[in-house]
Amino acid sequence: MGEVVVVAPDGPQSGKGHAITIDGILRCDEITIDDGPQKEYSCSGTPVDCVKLAVNVVLDRKPDLVISGINHGSNSSINVIYSGTMSAAVEGSLEGIPAIGFSLCDYSWEANFEKANTAILELCKRVLKEGLPKGVCLNVNIPKYNGNPYKGMKVCRQARANWEEEFDSRRDPRHRNYYWLTGKFVNYDHGEDTDEWALDNYYISVVPVNSDVTAHAMIQTLNEWDL
Amino acid sequence: MGEVVVVAPDGPQSGKGHAITIDGILRCDEITIDDGPQKEYSCSGTPVDCVKLAVNVVLDRKPDLVISGINHGSNSSINVIYSGTMSAAVEGSLEGIPAIGFSLCDYSWEANFEKANTAILELCKRVLKEGLPKGVCLNVNIPKYNGNPYKGMKVCRQARANWEEEFDSRRDPRHRNYYWLTGKFVNYDHGEDTDEWALDNYYISVVPVNSDVTAHAMIQTLNEWDL
Repeated sequence: MGEVVVVAPDGPQSGKGHAITIDGILRCDEITIDDGPQKEYSCSGTPVDCVKLAVNVVLDRKPDLVISGINHGSNSSINVIYSGTMSAAVEGSLEGIPAIGFSLCDYSWEANFEKANTAILELCKRVLKEGLPKGVCLNVNIPKYNGNPYKGMKVCRQARANWEEEFDSRRDPRHRNYYWLTGKFVNYDHGEDTDEWALDNYYISVVPVNSDVTAHAMIQTLNEWDL
Repeated sequence: MGEVVVVAPDGPQSGKGHAITIDGILRCDEITIDDGPQKEYSCSGTPVDCVKLAVNVVLDRKPDLVISGINHGSNSSINVIYSGTMSAAVEGSLEGIPAIGFSLCDYSWEANFEKANTAILELCKRVLKEGLPKGVCLNVNIPKYNGNPYKGMKVCRQARANWEEEFDSRRDPRHRNYYWLTGKFVNYDHGEDTDEWALDNYYISVVPVNSDVTAHAMIQTLNEWDL
Protein backbone atom coordinates (compact mmCIF):
# COMPACT_ATOMS: atom_id res chain seq x y z
CA MET A 1 0.00 0.00 0.00
CA GLY A 2 2.82 2.41 0.75
CA GLU A 3 5.87 3.15 2.85
CA VAL A 4 5.42 1.65 6.32
CA VAL A 5 7.00 2.99 9.51
CA VAL A 6 6.38 1.02 12.71
CA VAL A 7 6.65 2.78 16.06
CA ALA A 8 5.70 0.28 18.73
CA PRO A 9 5.94 0.04 22.52
CA ASP A 10 8.82 -2.09 23.81
CA GLY A 11 6.50 -4.21 25.96
CA PRO A 12 2.88 -5.13 26.63
CA GLN A 13 0.58 -2.15 27.07
CA SER A 14 -2.75 -3.75 27.95
CA GLY A 15 -5.22 -1.38 29.55
CA LYS A 16 -3.08 1.72 29.11
CA GLY A 17 -5.99 3.79 27.82
CA HIS A 18 -5.00 7.30 26.76
CA ALA A 19 -2.06 7.44 29.17
CA ILE A 20 0.95 9.57 28.20
CA THR A 21 4.40 9.86 29.76
CA ILE A 22 4.72 13.21 31.51
CA ASP A 23 6.79 12.44 34.59
CA GLY A 24 9.59 10.52 32.92
CA ILE A 25 11.72 10.28 29.81
CA LEU A 26 10.95 8.50 26.57
CA ARG A 27 13.27 6.37 24.48
CA CYS A 28 12.66 5.82 20.79
CA ASP A 29 15.28 3.77 18.98
CA GLU A 30 15.41 2.25 15.51
CA ILE A 31 15.52 -1.55 15.58
CA THR A 32 15.04 -4.45 13.18
CA ILE A 33 12.51 -7.17 13.92
CA ASP A 34 10.97 -8.28 10.64
CA ASP A 35 12.35 -8.59 7.14
CA GLY A 36 11.03 -6.10 4.63
CA PRO A 37 11.41 -2.47 3.61
CA GLN A 38 9.58 -1.01 6.61
CA LYS A 39 11.37 1.07 9.23
CA GLU A 40 10.88 -0.07 12.83
CA TYR A 41 11.21 1.85 16.08
CA SER A 42 10.95 0.65 19.65
CA CYS A 43 9.47 3.15 22.10
CA SER A 44 9.60 3.02 25.89
CA GLY A 45 6.24 4.73 26.35
CA THR A 46 2.55 4.06 25.91
CA PRO A 47 0.72 3.54 22.58
CA VAL A 48 -0.29 7.22 22.60
CA ASP A 49 3.35 8.24 23.22
CA CYS A 50 4.25 6.15 20.15
CA VAL A 51 1.93 8.19 17.92
CA LYS A 52 3.22 11.48 19.31
CA LEU A 53 6.84 10.37 18.83
CA ALA A 54 6.14 9.03 15.34
CA VAL A 55 4.57 12.27 14.17
CA ASN A 56 6.91 14.69 15.93
CA VAL A 57 10.28 12.93 16.12
CA VAL A 58 10.50 9.97 13.74
CA LEU A 59 8.76 11.18 10.59
CA ASP A 60 9.60 14.13 8.38
CA ARG A 61 5.95 14.68 7.52
CA LYS A 62 2.56 13.61 8.80
CA PRO A 63 1.76 10.08 7.67
CA ASP A 64 -1.24 9.50 5.38
CA LEU A 65 -2.69 6.90 7.72
CA VAL A 66 -2.24 5.76 11.30
CA ILE A 67 -2.86 2.05 11.84
CA SER A 68 -2.96 0.81 15.41
CA GLY A 69 -2.90 -2.90 16.19
CA ILE A 70 -3.82 -5.56 15.31
CA ASN A 71 -4.61 -5.88 19.00
CA HIS A 72 -4.59 -9.38 20.43
CA GLY A 73 -8.08 -9.32 21.98
CA SER A 74 -11.31 -7.39 21.67
CA ASN A 75 -11.62 -3.61 21.85
CA SER A 76 -15.33 -3.52 21.13
CA SER A 77 -17.94 -1.68 23.15
CA ILE A 78 -16.66 -0.03 26.36
CA ASN A 79 -13.22 -1.63 25.91
CA VAL A 80 -12.51 1.28 23.56
CA ILE A 81 -11.82 3.60 26.51
CA TYR A 82 -9.43 1.20 28.32
CA SER A 83 -7.59 0.28 25.14
CA GLY A 84 -4.11 1.58 24.37
CA THR A 85 -4.58 0.40 20.78
CA MET A 86 -7.70 2.49 20.30
CA SER A 87 -6.26 5.46 22.19
CA ALA A 88 -3.35 5.49 19.72
CA ALA A 89 -5.89 5.67 16.88
CA VAL A 90 -7.74 8.50 18.68
CA GLU A 91 -4.41 10.32 19.08
CA GLY A 92 -3.81 10.00 15.33
CA SER A 93 -7.21 11.53 14.66
CA LEU A 94 -6.39 14.44 16.98
CA GLU A 95 -3.30 15.08 14.88
CA GLY A 96 -5.63 15.33 11.89
CA ILE A 97 -4.49 12.01 10.43
CA PRO A 98 -7.01 9.36 9.28
CA ALA A 99 -6.62 6.59 11.83
CA ILE A 100 -7.90 3.05 12.34
CA GLY A 101 -7.52 0.70 15.27
CA PHE A 102 -7.81 -3.03 14.51
CA SER A 103 -8.44 -5.73 17.10
CA LEU A 104 -8.96 -9.46 16.84
CA CYS A 105 -11.44 -10.98 19.29
CA ASP A 106 -9.25 -14.00 19.98
CA TYR A 107 -6.91 -14.11 22.98
CA SER A 108 -5.37 -17.50 22.17
CA TRP A 109 -1.71 -17.88 21.22
CA GLU A 110 -2.83 -19.61 18.01
CA ALA A 111 -5.13 -16.75 17.00
CA ASN A 112 -5.31 -16.38 13.22
CA PHE A 113 -4.56 -12.74 12.40
CA GLU A 114 -4.52 -13.21 8.62
CA LYS A 115 -8.05 -14.11 7.62
CA ALA A 116 -9.21 -10.48 7.74
CA ASN A 117 -6.37 -9.23 5.52
CA THR A 118 -8.60 -8.55 2.52
CA ALA A 119 -11.11 -6.58 4.56
CA ILE A 120 -8.35 -4.63 6.34
CA LEU A 121 -6.72 -3.68 3.04
CA GLU A 122 -10.04 -2.65 1.53
CA LEU A 123 -10.91 -0.47 4.52
CA CYS A 124 -7.48 1.19 4.64
CA LYS A 125 -7.67 2.06 0.93
CA ARG A 126 -11.17 3.44 1.38
CA VAL A 127 -10.14 5.61 4.34
CA LEU A 128 -7.15 6.91 2.37
CA LYS A 129 -9.49 7.83 -0.49
CA GLU A 130 -12.37 9.34 1.52
CA GLY A 131 -10.52 10.68 4.54
CA LEU A 132 -12.03 11.02 8.00
CA PRO A 133 -13.07 14.20 9.84
CA LYS A 134 -10.45 15.53 12.26
CA GLY A 135 -10.99 13.98 15.68
CA VAL A 136 -12.83 10.91 14.33
CA CYS A 137 -11.18 7.50 13.91
CA LEU A 138 -12.45 3.97 13.32
CA ASN A 139 -12.63 1.13 15.84
CA VAL A 140 -12.54 -2.13 13.89
CA ASN A 141 -13.03 -5.46 15.63
CA ILE A 142 -12.66 -8.80 13.91
CA PRO A 143 -14.45 -11.91 15.21
CA LYS A 144 -12.47 -15.00 16.15
CA TYR A 145 -11.98 -16.98 12.94
CA ASN A 146 -14.24 -20.07 12.85
CA GLY A 147 -13.10 -21.66 9.59
CA ASN A 148 -15.61 -19.79 7.42
CA PRO A 149 -15.02 -16.52 5.57
CA TYR A 150 -16.16 -13.44 7.48
CA LYS A 151 -19.65 -12.25 6.49
CA GLY A 152 -18.38 -8.74 5.74
CA MET A 153 -18.05 -5.39 7.50
CA LYS A 154 -20.82 -3.70 9.44
CA VAL A 155 -20.92 -0.05 10.52
CA CYS A 156 -22.08 0.01 14.14
CA ARG A 157 -22.44 2.03 17.28
CA GLN A 158 -20.64 1.12 20.51
CA ALA A 159 -22.79 -1.29 22.54
CA ARG A 160 -23.76 -0.24 26.07
CA ALA A 161 -21.82 -2.73 28.14
CA ASN A 162 -19.37 -2.72 30.98
CA TRP A 163 -17.11 -4.78 33.18
CA GLU A 164 -18.33 -6.12 36.47
CA GLU A 165 -15.17 -6.25 38.52
CA GLU A 166 -14.32 -9.14 40.75
CA PHE A 167 -11.05 -8.42 42.53
CA ASP A 168 -9.03 -11.46 43.43
CA SER A 169 -7.86 -10.67 46.97
CA ARG A 170 -4.70 -12.40 48.21
CA ARG A 171 -2.09 -12.23 50.97
CA ASP A 172 1.60 -11.89 50.23
CA PRO A 173 4.29 -13.87 52.13
CA ARG A 174 4.52 -10.95 54.58
CA HIS A 175 0.77 -11.12 55.32
CA ARG A 176 -0.15 -7.90 53.49
CA ASN A 177 -3.23 -7.82 51.28
CA TYR A 178 -2.98 -7.31 47.54
CA TYR A 179 -5.41 -7.51 44.64
CA TRP A 180 -5.64 -8.69 41.07
CA LEU A 181 -8.16 -6.96 38.85
CA THR A 182 -10.46 -9.46 37.16
CA GLY A 183 -13.97 -9.12 35.86
CA LYS A 184 -16.81 -10.18 33.68
CA PHE A 185 -17.90 -8.37 30.52
CA VAL A 186 -21.63 -7.70 30.63
CA ASN A 187 -23.49 -6.52 27.53
CA TYR A 188 -26.88 -5.07 28.47
CA ASP A 189 -27.54 -3.64 25.00
CA HIS A 190 -29.72 -5.80 22.73
CA GLY A 191 -29.70 -3.47 19.72
CA GLU A 192 -28.87 -5.00 16.35
CA ASP A 193 -26.91 -1.90 15.35
CA THR A 194 -24.13 -2.46 17.91
CA ASP A 195 -20.59 -3.77 17.55
CA GLU A 196 -21.39 -6.65 19.92
CA TRP A 197 -24.27 -7.76 17.72
CA ALA A 198 -22.10 -7.59 14.59
CA LEU A 199 -19.32 -9.62 16.21
CA ASP A 200 -21.75 -12.20 17.59
CA ASN A 201 -23.04 -12.59 14.03
CA TYR A 202 -19.56 -13.01 12.50
CA TYR A 203 -19.34 -9.54 10.95
CA ILE A 204 -16.29 -7.30 11.24
CA SER A 205 -17.54 -4.31 13.27
CA VAL A 206 -16.63 -0.75 12.26
CA VAL A 207 -17.45 1.94 14.85
CA PRO A 208 -16.62 5.61 14.21
CA VAL A 209 -15.09 7.02 17.40
CA ASN A 210 -15.20 10.63 18.46
CA SER A 211 -12.62 12.51 20.53
CA ASP A 212 -15.33 15.01 21.44
CA VAL A 213 -16.78 13.21 24.45
CA THR A 214 -19.39 15.88 25.24
CA ALA A 215 -22.76 14.31 26.06
CA HIS A 216 -24.49 16.83 23.80
CA ALA A 217 -27.96 15.45 24.51
CA MET A 218 -27.45 16.24 28.20
CA ILE A 219 -26.64 19.94 27.74
CA GLN A 220 -30.26 21.06 27.58
CA THR A 221 -31.14 19.08 30.72
CA LEU A 222 -28.27 20.68 32.61
CA ASN A 223 -29.29 24.13 31.41
CA GLU A 224 -32.71 23.49 32.91
CA TRP A 225 -31.05 22.90 36.29
CA ASP A 226 -30.37 26.65 36.19
CA LEU A 227 -27.07 26.37 38.06
CA MET B 1 -22.79 16.50 53.01
CA GLY B 2 -22.37 12.87 54.03
CA GLU B 3 -19.98 10.12 54.93
CA VAL B 4 -16.73 10.55 52.99
CA VAL B 5 -14.39 7.77 51.94
CA VAL B 6 -11.18 8.76 50.17
CA VAL B 7 -9.44 6.25 47.89
CA ALA B 8 -6.48 8.00 46.33
CA PRO B 9 -3.39 7.00 44.35
CA ASP B 10 -0.17 6.85 46.40
CA GLY B 11 1.66 9.13 43.96
CA PRO B 12 1.23 11.57 41.09
CA GLN B 13 -0.89 10.24 38.23
CA SER B 14 -0.69 13.01 35.64
CA GLY B 15 -1.67 11.93 32.16
CA LYS B 16 -2.78 8.44 33.17
CA GLY B 17 -5.98 8.65 31.12
CA HIS B 18 -8.22 5.62 31.51
CA ALA B 19 -5.31 3.28 32.28
CA ILE B 20 -5.98 0.30 34.54
CA THR B 21 -3.60 -2.17 36.15
CA ILE B 22 -3.88 -5.55 34.43
CA ASP B 23 -0.33 -6.88 34.43
CA GLY B 24 0.51 -6.32 38.08
CA ILE B 25 -0.92 -6.34 41.57
CA LEU B 26 -2.74 -3.58 43.40
CA ARG B 27 -2.33 -2.47 46.98
CA CYS B 28 -5.07 -0.65 48.83
CA ASP B 29 -4.35 0.15 52.48
CA GLU B 30 -6.15 2.29 55.03
CA ILE B 31 -4.09 5.27 56.16
CA THR B 32 -4.60 8.54 58.01
CA ILE B 33 -3.63 11.83 56.43
CA ASP B 34 -6.13 14.46 57.50
CA ASP B 35 -8.10 15.00 60.68
CA GLY B 36 -11.80 14.37 60.44
CA PRO B 37 -14.32 11.56 60.31
CA GLN B 38 -13.51 10.47 56.73
CA LYS B 39 -11.89 7.13 55.96
CA GLU B 40 -8.77 7.27 53.81
CA TYR B 41 -7.16 4.62 51.62
CA SER B 42 -3.92 4.72 49.67
CA CYS B 43 -3.95 2.78 46.40
CA SER B 44 -0.94 1.73 44.32
CA GLY B 45 -2.80 1.98 41.02
CA THR B 46 -4.23 4.55 38.65
CA PRO B 47 -7.19 6.86 39.35
CA VAL B 48 -9.50 4.42 37.53
CA ASP B 49 -8.14 1.54 39.65
CA CYS B 50 -9.02 3.62 42.73
CA VAL B 51 -12.68 3.82 41.68
CA LYS B 52 -12.83 0.10 40.92
CA LEU B 53 -11.20 -0.76 44.28
CA ALA B 54 -13.44 1.68 46.16
CA VAL B 55 -16.62 0.22 44.73
CA ASN B 56 -15.62 -3.45 44.80
CA VAL B 57 -13.24 -3.82 47.74
CA VAL B 58 -13.42 -0.88 50.15
CA LEU B 59 -17.13 -0.05 50.32
CA ASP B 60 -20.01 -2.24 51.42
CA ARG B 61 -22.39 -0.56 49.00
CA LYS B 62 -22.19 1.71 45.96
CA PRO B 63 -21.52 5.30 47.01
CA ASP B 64 -24.12 7.97 46.24
CA LEU B 65 -21.58 10.15 44.50
CA VAL B 66 -18.07 9.83 43.07
CA ILE B 67 -15.98 12.98 43.34
CA SER B 68 -12.66 13.03 41.53
CA GLY B 69 -10.13 15.76 42.16
CA ILE B 70 -9.78 18.64 42.74
CA ASN B 71 -7.12 18.25 40.08
CA HIS B 72 -4.19 20.65 40.25
CA GLY B 73 -4.40 21.95 36.67
CA SER B 74 -6.91 22.19 33.84
CA ASN B 75 -8.86 19.26 32.43
CA SER B 76 -10.90 21.32 30.01
CA SER B 77 -11.35 20.59 26.31
CA ILE B 78 -9.26 17.70 24.95
CA ASN B 79 -7.43 17.32 28.29
CA VAL B 80 -10.45 15.28 29.36
CA ILE B 81 -9.14 12.22 27.51
CA TYR B 82 -5.59 12.39 28.95
CA SER B 83 -6.81 13.08 32.46
CA GLY B 84 -6.71 10.44 35.20
CA THR B 85 -9.01 12.65 37.27
CA MET B 86 -11.68 12.72 34.59
CA SER B 87 -11.22 9.04 33.73
CA ALA B 88 -11.98 8.21 37.38
CA ALA B 89 -15.22 10.20 37.06
CA VAL B 90 -16.04 8.36 33.81
CA GLU B 91 -15.39 5.07 35.58
CA GLY B 92 -17.83 6.07 38.33
CA SER B 93 -20.47 6.80 35.69
CA LEU B 94 -19.89 3.37 34.13
CA GLU B 95 -20.62 1.84 37.54
CA GLY B 96 -23.93 3.71 37.44
CA ILE B 97 -22.87 6.21 40.11
CA PRO B 98 -23.35 9.96 39.62
CA ALA B 99 -19.81 11.28 39.20
CA ILE B 100 -18.10 14.66 38.93
CA GLY B 101 -14.49 15.52 38.18
CA PHE B 102 -13.24 18.87 39.46
CA SER B 103 -10.13 20.65 38.22
CA LEU B 104 -8.59 24.01 39.05
CA CYS B 105 -6.91 25.82 36.16
CA ASP B 106 -3.95 26.91 38.27
CA TYR B 107 -0.72 24.92 38.33
CA SER B 108 1.04 27.08 40.94
CA TRP B 109 1.94 25.77 44.39
CA GLU B 110 -0.01 28.66 45.90
CA ALA B 111 -3.18 27.84 43.93
CA ASN B 112 -6.31 28.71 45.90
CA PHE B 113 -8.53 25.61 45.92
CA GLU B 114 -11.14 27.04 48.29
CA LYS B 115 -12.81 29.89 46.45
CA ALA B 116 -15.07 27.54 44.47
CA ASN B 117 -16.29 25.68 47.57
CA THR B 118 -19.79 27.14 47.45
CA ALA B 119 -20.24 26.28 43.78
CA ILE B 120 -18.83 22.77 44.28
CA LEU B 121 -21.18 22.10 47.20
CA GLU B 122 -24.18 23.43 45.25
CA LEU B 123 -23.38 21.28 42.22
CA CYS B 124 -22.80 18.12 44.29
CA LYS B 125 -26.15 18.57 46.06
CA ARG B 126 -27.88 19.14 42.76
CA VAL B 127 -26.37 16.02 41.19
CA LEU B 128 -27.38 13.98 44.25
CA LYS B 129 -30.93 15.27 43.87
CA GLU B 130 -31.32 14.99 40.08
CA GLY B 131 -29.01 12.07 39.33
CA LEU B 132 -27.13 11.60 36.07
CA PRO B 133 -27.80 9.06 33.30
CA LYS B 134 -25.62 5.94 33.51
CA GLY B 135 -22.45 6.51 31.53
CA VAL B 136 -22.60 10.31 31.78
CA CYS B 137 -20.50 12.32 34.25
CA LEU B 138 -19.60 15.99 34.65
CA ASN B 139 -16.28 17.65 33.85
CA VAL B 140 -16.03 20.79 35.98
CA ASN B 141 -13.17 23.24 35.52
CA ILE B 142 -12.60 26.22 37.77
CA PRO B 143 -10.71 29.29 36.53
CA LYS B 144 -7.62 30.48 38.36
CA TYR B 145 -8.82 32.75 41.17
CA ASN B 146 -8.17 36.43 40.37
CA GLY B 147 -9.36 38.05 43.60
CA ASN B 148 -12.98 38.45 42.44
CA PRO B 149 -15.85 36.04 43.04
CA TYR B 150 -16.44 33.60 40.17
CA LYS B 151 -19.17 34.75 37.77
CA GLY B 152 -21.06 31.46 38.18
CA MET B 153 -21.33 28.09 36.45
CA LYS B 154 -21.84 27.62 32.73
CA VAL B 155 -22.96 24.43 31.00
CA CYS B 156 -20.68 23.96 27.97
CA ARG B 157 -19.49 21.62 25.29
CA GLN B 158 -15.86 20.50 25.03
CA ALA B 159 -13.90 22.98 22.89
CA ARG B 160 -12.16 21.64 19.80
CA ALA B 161 -8.53 22.05 20.76
CA ASN B 162 -5.43 19.96 20.94
CA TRP B 163 -1.81 19.82 21.96
CA GLU B 164 0.93 20.60 19.50
CA GLU B 165 3.78 18.49 20.74
CA GLU B 166 7.31 19.74 20.92
CA PHE B 167 9.56 16.96 22.15
CA ASP B 168 12.65 18.12 24.02
CA SER B 169 15.36 15.85 22.60
CA ARG B 170 18.44 15.26 24.78
CA ARG B 171 21.46 12.97 25.11
CA ASP B 172 22.18 11.02 28.24
CA PRO B 173 25.70 10.66 29.74
CA ARG B 174 26.12 7.49 27.64
CA HIS B 175 25.30 9.38 24.40
CA ARG B 176 21.88 7.78 23.87
CA ASN B 177 18.96 9.94 22.81
CA TYR B 178 15.95 10.47 25.03
CA TYR B 179 12.91 12.70 24.93
CA TRP B 180 10.71 14.78 27.19
CA LEU B 181 7.14 15.33 26.06
CA THR B 182 6.25 19.02 26.03
CA GLY B 183 3.71 20.93 24.00
CA LYS B 184 1.51 23.90 23.45
CA PHE B 185 -2.26 23.88 23.96
CA VAL B 186 -3.98 25.27 20.85
CA ASN B 187 -7.69 26.14 20.91
CA TYR B 188 -9.05 26.47 17.38
CA ASP B 189 -12.68 26.67 18.50
CA HIS B 190 -14.13 30.17 18.78
CA GLY B 191 -17.62 29.12 19.90
CA GLU B 192 -19.06 30.89 22.94
CA ASP B 193 -20.66 27.66 24.13
CA THR B 194 -17.34 25.94 24.90
CA ASP B 195 -15.55 25.26 28.18
CA GLU B 196 -12.57 27.31 27.01
CA TRP B 197 -14.78 30.34 26.43
CA ALA B 198 -16.40 29.95 29.85
CA LEU B 199 -13.02 29.69 31.59
CA ASP B 200 -11.59 32.65 29.68
CA ASN B 201 -14.59 34.64 30.88
CA TYR B 202 -14.17 33.58 34.54
CA TYR B 203 -17.06 31.13 34.64
CA ILE B 204 -16.81 27.66 36.14
CA SER B 205 -17.33 25.32 33.16
CA VAL B 206 -19.58 22.26 33.43
CA VAL B 207 -19.34 19.78 30.53
CA PRO B 208 -21.40 16.58 30.49
CA VAL B 209 -19.11 13.75 29.39
CA ASN B 210 -20.24 10.59 27.66
CA SER B 211 -18.63 7.16 27.88
CA ASP B 212 -20.31 6.29 24.57
CA VAL B 213 -17.65 7.63 22.21
CA THR B 214 -19.46 6.62 19.02
CA ALA B 215 -19.34 9.41 16.42
CA HIS B 216 -23.05 8.92 15.71
CA ALA B 217 -23.13 11.64 13.05
CA MET B 218 -20.54 9.69 11.06
CA ILE B 219 -22.49 6.42 10.89
CA GLN B 220 -24.60 7.44 7.90
CA THR B 221 -21.54 8.60 5.96
CA LEU B 222 -19.82 5.28 6.59
CA ASN B 223 -22.91 3.37 5.53
CA GLU B 224 -22.79 5.24 2.23
CA TRP B 225 -19.27 3.89 1.69
CA ASP B 226 -21.01 0.55 1.20
CA LEU B 227 -18.18 -1.48 2.71
